[in-house]
Parts: sequence; structure tokens; C-alpha cells
Amino acid sequence: MQIAIPLFDGFTALDAVGPYEVLSRLPGAQVKFVAAEPGPKVTETHSLTMVAEHSLDDLPGPDILMVPGGFGTRDLLDDEQHLEWLRNAHEHTIWTTSVCTGSLLLGAAGILRGLKATTHWAVIDRLASYGAIPTNERVVEQGKVVTAAGVSSGIDMALRLAERIAGEDFAKGIQLGIEYDPQPPFDAGSPRTAPPHLVEALKGLIEQAEVNAQAAR
Amino acid sequence: MQIAIPLFDGFTALDAVGPYEVLSRLPGAQVKFVAAEPGPKVTETHSLTMVAEHSLDDLPGPDILMVPGGFGTRDLLDDEQHLEWLRNAHEHTIWTTSVCTGSLLLGAAGILRGLKATTHWAVIDRLASYGAIPTNERVVEQGKVVTAAGVSSGIDMALRLAERIAGEDFAKGIQLGIEYDPQPPFDAGSPRTAPPHLVEALKGLIEQAEVNAQAAR
Repeated sequence: MQIAIPLFDGFTALDAVGPYEVLSRLPGAQVKFVAAEPGPKVTETHSLTMVAEHSLDDLPGPDILMVPGGFGTRDLLDDEQHLEWLRNAHEHTIWTTSVCTGSLLLGAAGILRGLKATTHWAVIDRLASYGAIPTNERVVEQGKVVTAAGVSSGIDMALRLAERIAGEDFAKGIQLGIEYDPQPPFDAGSPRTAPPHLVEALKGLIEQAEVNAQAAR
Repeated sequence: MQIAIPLFDGFTALDAVGPYEVLSRLPGAQVKFVAAEPGPKVTETHSLTMVAEHSLDDLPGPDILMVPGGFGTRDLLDDEQHLEWLRNAHEHTIWTTSVCTGSLLLGAAGILRGLKATTHWAVIDRLASYGAIPTNERVVEQGKVVTAAGVSSGIDMALRLAERIAGEDFAKGIQLGIEYDPQPPFDAGSPRTAPPHLVEALKGLIEQAEVNAQAAR
């Protein structure tokens, strides 16, 4: 079972590594990190480098496609080579998935048209511009297309996928293996529960970061 | 604020990336991935490569030390150069932390003597051999030494640390930024809640993997 995770400069590490840590434990899993140009890819904080060992051409037909997000997605939204690879891969997949703003890439590739989908809460309205139906849930399943909310949600998404692929017992075993018994110190991980001033402040910061990134292009 | 995360072949990616994703968002954070020999380090699944850009010598006195786990820790338990670096770094730190079997390395370095500590549930008894007091909690704080349980627990640990360092509001902002509103599909992330047959099976698998790793050395 080939699992392709595309990397690009400016991706968010946990978007990729959460699902990787779950999906790599499935029977027969072969996780491959891919990029248009293989090699080191730097996260959006610039302090971590992960390596895409394979080219997009090496994996034209993965069984699972798992697209991470990050500010770097914005540079790819009009990258026709990348979008075409996503479209072609999606034709072959058993599951097409994303975490955080990875769903904007699926959207730009036309994969979300008419489907409910989610992304990071701060940019969820943007999904509508791709013909998707923005849906405030942590994991949104629409046939074989599964989108997850921001950053850490990929762990929950991948465990659900593990259940579909290998059964409930196996998925529970993976959860136990990564000791995923979350005990966040606060109930502040969603705009529904976080203090409103933090929601506003963060939304402003993210919008500003987007403007800055746009100006730097 | 320098944050050193040592990498080594056979580390567990989420052990490192969970805390990285939280701590890198702290004001003035400079996360540095370090190794005795800088360069690409392969995770225990062999399917993901992350790069240690800095040598241990580059960061003799980090403010935060964050040691990830993974089967690769076993090769370092008697690596005097690595243990000596941990001991020296610990003398300078404001916080000395670990995720999963990273605490075995802290233990081997003599840092946990007389302290309560935790690690992955399947190997927690081993902490006693380093003079630590094995403690079944997700995050164990003992002065400036903070150990976390298996793999995914580093996110919870790092959010607690973020609160100590930057205050509750800032920590909540980070939690909201990474949308950490966990919704695991099962209540199976701890040996207390998982089906007993899975606990036994996984413990057997992990013991066997250790034996195999020992034989391969």
C-alpha cells in the first residue's frame, strides 16, 4: 500500500508527521515523501528540514494521497504541474486526504467540487471558492475524499482511516502504540472554545502572514 | 531562547515534531535539531528523513533540551559522548525535557536519579534501573525536568511548558493555532483504556523489536 505525502517548502511539519506516524504502522504501508523536485524541504518556521526522497513522477498512482498544509501551499495553488499530479494521483487513489490548508490544494486541483470539506479554522471560508462546502468538523469524509482541520487534526483523521483500512482493533492498537490519550492543558483548541480575543488575534496574524507571503512572491 | 532537539537514526518522528510544532511558536524561539554528526537522520520506520543541521558542539548550553525517543535510543544508552553532552546541556538548561523513550537517555545520563519520571507505557519499568521513580502520568514535572509518556504526549507536554514560559494566554493561542482539539475515534490510547489483548500483543511486539535490534547491533 503506497502512501504519498507531498512535501514543499513552507509546509507544516505536524500536518505531515501526525498522519505519517499512524499510517506508517498499517500492514504493508510504504510511506513515500514526494516533491516535484526531490530533496530537502524546509518547514514554514525555517527551523526544520525534512527530505522528499521521491519525485512526483515516481509515484503517479499512490493508494493513499495525504496532502499537508502550511503557508507554502499558497505558492502551489497556481502551480499547474503540482495540481495536475494531484488530479492524476486522485484518479488512482483508494483514499485522497488532506490536513489543514492541504485541502486548499485539493480544492485548487478541482477535487473538492460539490463536496463538504474542512481546513484550518482561520481560512475555512476560502474552500467555497473551489466549489467545496466549508464544514466545521474535525474530519470530513466524502466518499474517498477525507479532509481534516488544522495541523494536529491529522492524527484523528489517520486513525479513522486506519479503522477503515485495517479494522477497529488494528486502529486501536496503533492508537495505543503512539499512546494517543490526549490531555491538553486547556480547552482552547477550537475557535468555539478558545477566548474570543485569541481567535481574533490569531486570525489577524494569519491574514497578515498571508499578505506578507504574497508580497514576497 | 535556544531549543535543542537531538536527532539520531531510529528516532520517532512525532516525538520530536509534536513539541517542535508548539515550542517553535514561542516568542524568540530558535529550534535547532542537533546530532553528534549533523546530517540526515532516518526515523525508526526508515521512511522519513529529517535533518540535524547542527552538531552537539554547536549547542553546548541550550535553554530547553527536548529529547525524543524511538528504538534508536537503545544504541545511545551507552554512548558516552552523547550522554556527556546531555549532562552538560542539562547543567545550562532552564527546562530539560523528553518524550517517550527519550527519558531512558536522560536516565542513562544520570539526570533522573531520585526523580519521578515517565516514558512509553510499554517500557516504563525500565526507568527504575536509572534510579528514577516510574510514574504513570502523561506529563511528569520535577523541578526543571519534565518527562512525557509515549509519542503523542509531547504535544501536551509542550503546551504545559509554553504556559510556564509565555503564560496561559500565549499557550492557549498556540493550541488554537495548531487546532489541538483532539477527537480520537477510540478511547484506546492508554493501557488503562485499551482492550487488554491489544496491550499484551503490543508489549510482546515491542519486546521482540528490542531483541531484534539488540541482535542486529
